[in-house]
Amino acid sequence: MPSLSLHPDRLFPADPSTRAIARELYAQVADAPIISPHGHTDPEWFATDAPWTNATELLLAPDHYLFRMLYSQGIALDELAVPRKGGVMPKTDPRAAWRLFAANRHLFRGTPSSMWLDHVFADVFGFDVALDATTADQYYDAIAEALVSPAFRPRALFERFDIELLATTEGAGDDLKHHKAIRASGWEGKVVTTYRPDSVIDPEHDSFARDIVRFAQLSGEDVHSWKGYLAAHRKRRADFRAMGATATDHGFLTTRTANLANAECEALFGKVMAGSADAQEAELFRAQMLTEMARMSVEDGMTMQIHPGATRNHNARLFESHGRDKGADIPRATEYVEALRPMLDLFGNEPDLKVILFTLDETTYTRELAPLAGHYPCLKLGPAWWFHDSPEGMRRFREMTTETAGFYNTVGFNDDTRAFLSIPARHDVARRIDCGFLARLVAEHRLADWEAADLVQELTVGLVRKAYGLKAPEREVEPA
Amino acid sequence: MPSLSLHPDRLFPADPSTRAIARELYAQVADAPIISPHGHTDPEWFATDAPWTNATELLLAPDHYLFRMLYSQGIALDELAVPRKGGVMPKTDPRAAWRLFAANRHLFRGTPSSMWLDHVFADVFGFDVALDATTADQYYDAIAEALVSPAFRPRALFERFDIELLATTEGAGDDLKHHKAIRASGWEGKVVTTYRPDSVIDPEHDSFARDIVRFAQLSGEDVHSWKGYLAAHRKRRADFRAMGATATDHGFLTTRTANLANAECEALFGKVMAGSADAQEAELFRAQMLTEMARMSVEDGMTMQIHPGATRNHNARLFESHGRDKGADIPRATEYVEALRPMLDLFGNEPDLKVILFTLDETTYTRELAPLAGHYPCLKLGPAWWFHDSPEGMRRFREMTTETAGFYNTVGFNDDTRAFLSIPARHDVARRIDCGFLARLVAEHRLADWEAADLVQELTVGLVRKAYGLKAPEREVEPA
Amino acid sequence: MPSLSLHPDRLFPADPSTRAIARELYAQVADAPIISPHGHTDPEWFATDAPWTNATELLLAPDHYLFRMLYSQGIALDELAVPRKGGVMPKTDPRAAWRLFAANRHLFRGTPSSMWLDHVFADVFGFDVALDATTADQYYDAIAEALVSPAFRPRALFERFDIELLATTEGAGDDLKHHKAIRASGWEGKVVTTYRPDSVIDPEHDSFARDIVRFAQLSGEDVHSWKGYLAAHRKRRADFRAMGATATDHGFLTTRTANLANAECEALFGKVMAGSADAQEAELFRAQMLTEMARMSVEDGMTMQIHPGATRNHNARLFESHGRDKGADIPRATEYVEALRPMLDLFGNEPDLKVILFTLDETTYTRELAPLAGHYPCLKLGPAWWFHDSPEGMRRFREMTTETAGFYNTVGFNDDTRAFLSIPARHDVARRIDCGFLARLVAEHRLADWEAADLVQELTVGLVRKAYGLKAPEREVEPA
Repeated sequence: MPSLSLHPDRLFPADPSTRAIARELYAQVADAPIISPHGHTDPEWFATDAPWTNATELLLAPDHYLFRMLYSQGIALDELAVPRKGGVMPKTDPRAAWRLFAANRHLFRGTPSSMWLDHVFADVFGFDVALDATTADQYYDAIAEALVSPAFRPRALFERFDIELLATTEGAGDDLKHHKAIRASGWEGKVVTTYRPDSVIDPEHDSFARDIVRFAQLSGEDVHSWKGYLAAHRKRRADFRAMGATATDHGFLTTRTANLANAECEALFGKVMAGSADAQEAELFRAQMLTEMARMSVEDGMTMQIHPGATRNHNARLFESHGRDKGADIPRATEYVEALRPMLDLFGNEPDLKVILFTLDETTYTRELAPLAGHYPCLKLGPAWWFHDSPEGMRRFREMTTETAGFYNTVGFNDDTRAFLSIPARHDVARRIDCGFLARLVAEHRLADWEAADLVQELTVGLVRKAYGLKAPEREVEPA
Repeated sequence: MPSLSLHPDRLFPADPSTRAIARELYAQVADAPIISPHGHTDPEWFATDAPWTNATELLLAPDHYLFRMLYSQGIALDELAVPRKGGVMPKTDPRAAWRLFAANRHLFRGTPSSMWLDHVFADVFGFDVALDATTADQYYDAIAEALVSPAFRPRALFERFDIELLATTEGAGDDLKHHKAIRASGWEGKVVTTYRPDSVIDPEHDSFARDIVRFAQLSGEDVHSWKGYLAAHRKRRADFRAMGATATDHGFLTTRTANLANAECEALFGKVMAGSADAQEAELFRAQMLTEMARMSVEDGMTMQIHPGATRNHNARLFESHGRDKGADIPRATEYVEALRPMLDLFGNEPDLKVILFTLDETTYTRELAPLAGHYPCLKLGPAWWFHDSPEGMRRFREMTTETAGFYNTVGFNDDTRAFLSIPARHDVARRIDCGFLARLVAEHRLADWEAADLVQELTVGLVRKAYGLKAPEREVEPA
Repeated sequence: MPSLSLHPDRLFPADPSTRAIARELYAQVADAPIISPHGHTDPEWFATDAPWTNATELLLAPDHYLFRMLYSQGIALDELAVPRKGGVMPKTDPRAAWRLFAANRHLFRGTPSSMWLDHVFADVFGFDVALDATTADQYYDAIAEALVSPAFRPRALFERFDIELLATTEGAGDDLKHHKAIRASGWEGKVVTTYRPDSVIDPEHDSFARDIVRFAQLSGEDVHSWKGYLAAHRKRRADFRAMGATATDHGFLTTRTANLANAECEALFGKVMAGSADAQEAELFRAQMLTEMARMSVEDGMTMQIHPGATRNHNARLFESHGRDKGADIPRATEYVEALRPMLDLFGNEPDLKVILFTLDETTYTRELAPLAGHYPCLKLGPAWWFHDSPEGMRRFREMTTETAGFYNTVGFNDDTRAFLSIPARHDVARRIDCGFLARLVAEHRLADWEAADLVQELTVGLVRKAYGLKAPEREVEPA
């Protein structure tokens, strides 16, 4: 039975002198608090603090990184107890699903999931044997036992993980009741929301019609006039800010922006609300709305995040049976330079606007994103995202953006996850990769050691707070 | 006179601890048999077992990697004894061509050709001095002498190279007589064919008209009806399977697929056969046929290989004088996500279908190919191909695909070569690069040593057999 | 106060055995003369030999690498004493601008600017403390003091830098008076020009109308007929050759070429000169003119450089206030394979034509540029350019081009700079990165040590002279 342990030097470059530098840098941030300004955990967990039930429900069924890989090897989602469309649960014994996962643990070799899982298993649950077919039941039972204890309730883990701030993401039609409940509970954990209005902006979103109704109700505005619709966004942004939001988030296929005259906006909006906008008009409306969101960010100071480039629900049959977010989202080539121009013509030089650009198309790092962020005051680069949130992906991000955009046009790490237990693992990977990159620069005499020591604090804490407008809590990070 | 020797640590990372791990991993597969499931050697060699004549004919004139580089530096193909169009030989003394090549050996520094050549020279022919202008004749004479000996006949080398299986590639208009002759001869070397129907599918292929006639004759079907044309493919696929084929191969400029209604197919096919299809219709026909080939693979279990993205015969003057495959094929940006969608909508979730995707556009590794293969059950990633079949290319392939697709959605190495003598060299390079990559993961504590030991066997043997539906021979690989 | 020193091992790989090899290779070229066949220094400096005035005017205000990064962090160009449109100087105390730069020195950590600056500070001016807010005045004063001394005049620095040849770049409407003055002065420094006719070829260039007039005057040709316009180019190319030019340079957004019939050319040219060409016609005219420039290069032997892919003046407001070249040029995806085909169909196989291709789109290195240069006799690859003229960028260039194009289809280093004092720093970085790359190949036994020793001379001197048709001076490089 193979043993499980987390090596203290994991992810550091093998060269001994570089590794020694990385180790020293890492020591300075290993215990820094976690700041998670963008992610997808469920605020209900922290509102109710109800216990999770079992390993499958907690770790396997919600993690598309895991079930997409298993699916790619011919394993049906039903066998993994992944919910069908509308949340309908397949009749699968969660223990059987866990065993199937365990027997296929080898499929994840060399992937970030492998590192995240081992970190969760060793560090959160204290396992010292690796997960495989022979230890599946041992794991399943021990996790079930742990989850009933108070120490494994959501709030307890939040505190154990030393999370300084955790941002969730809610739609424009969300009443934010869980965030209100968290505040009402008196618990001091800082969980904030993020304004993600995609489903009331994208006429092609499958929840558009439903969410527009909720949007009208919650804002109390006449969302059927262009003016009222914009006012509704302003109101809801304020609602979100009241629940701690400092940022918005936007995820369309392209980064296209537009700058239409008001009459054009009104006419286009009329078509959208009448349901008569064609694909090009829908695209133009999303483009105009990205510009409107930038305009509102200039007004209200919210940081604007743009996550483009995913072809959602590529597998038509799977979408029909299982719905969204089932590992069938595939990146596409993404263009920024012309697409962002209309918005940048208006707001590119605003000194206080912060627009964070993400990408699933790594070719844009050196060609478009670093040059744009290395010039426009409003632009910052989000960290390596989704498929690229991995050791090699993060390393490429630094290697391909630093020389043109520098470190100071980046914003630190986002875990961007719904897998709450993996948050410490993910931040730890990011810190280790950053330390390894800085260590290489020091070893190659491209950066002084004192500069690297300064930078590792910035990448872990300083730039994150600055980009997302976060204040340092009274408890402050002490340099090691 | 510079000496020639193959360093036992070649291609391993320089860091001593990583190198030591790579060395150990390599020891486990250094002597594994060669499985070559995709390539372009000439089956006639093994059918007739006739000796090759001289170094130029054997090593230089057929190797487009070599003569393209020499051509780029202003050396005419005639001077290198490369055949002109229709196989017409220029009046060039093969020894003079060899001398010219030898005098320009330095042009290949840093290229994979350099490593392959030295491996062939040192390991196959036993040279201990490097090839250059001063040793050209010594090389030429020694090679000529070797080639007349029985030990250098094709079958003897096949056995000496410890080739477990060698797949050649034949067109749909090929009668497979050499494969039949190999079987009839009683020789036990396992040489199989691969079904490559491009020239009867692509209306713009310069052999289309001629090959359609052969296709009709060999299949005995009425290839002028859509139904008969498809039946002819089914027959010929069966013919190829009878000669050991487990795979088909398709190489168009794009990966576009289509799913037309039957009446549309018939109408389109009618135009194609009438010679009246325009460029868009030709593209649509190729697209529909990729889907038909996938459908047939679902039926008959043949693995489908897609090799897209080469702009063939880019140099118009050279094409006129020297014809195809003269080093003037240039890659193009290639799109997979939308192009494959019609086929994937139909067959993407088929658990037994195997479609292996290759690329000449490395930007698709992280952006499109790894995400697709990490989701769709039918998709696998072919190894770094053609221009990328090189140490840096292979390293990038692993670095850019593993984290999203894992190792188990890849299919091991293809030598894809017509240069028979270089086959051991090419497999050796691939094994060394894989060992170096695995060693880095182990040295960075991202993979346990026992996992790497398991993986190196999979990458060399296990995944190859699985992807191409090959059975292990009775003689089985013993782990070191 | 942090100290400043240049580590002798800077930029070499950290692995000790690789570093030792790099060190040895570097020793062979560390003191080689600087050959700078492409750049943008001002010939007036060498014609008048007038002293520079202060650090801000010399080092900060003309360097778009510096002020673009400061601008991206919200610092106005006026505060940095960067001239406004038409050369109007803002009322900014240059010392205040320098202090602001110094206080933000940290923004450049990890960028090539950081290495270039430190090299200039330590090596050219002899500083041993780092620049920051506390040393800004010390720097400003010491630099001002140095600049009045004869040793810091342009010609003295030219000689101190051991520059064998320096090419500047002038437009087709330039009278080359500074180059004539240099020659008339009897000074022996070799400063040559380069023919850059963009502003008389691109109908959309903002100086087109003005420069066409100068072009007519200087050539004495009737530039309003197609024939006369071409003759004017031929005359001006001869004028430039008389001032030492061996090369031309062309920088449009795309690499499109065309091969129109003469009547079509005349009609298109008529529209262009009438000011009635639309965007597509302007693009077609540029395309035809690239082909005409290649044709003239076949005639007169001038090396043709193509620098495509920059979206110029992306920031509309900044362009309005500050004009061109203010750090707001952003790369775009660039296509070469189809774009160059018309020109290559005509001249691709010309043995004496030399066309050097550059790119801002690194994805083309392996996919298009290396395959093209590894086949066509006329094509060579320019070094990593602009945003990619950096340690990581240069490393990627070698890793992504060498295996397909080899070293011998590359042309050595271009500093391509207007920052004269940084020229030694830039060449030093290039030499160190090349030595590190070669050292890795040697350490991995992919290249023999004697091959690397040969190559480092070629990359530093031999290939540069060959690509740009330069003769070795009587003083020749001695191998170390």
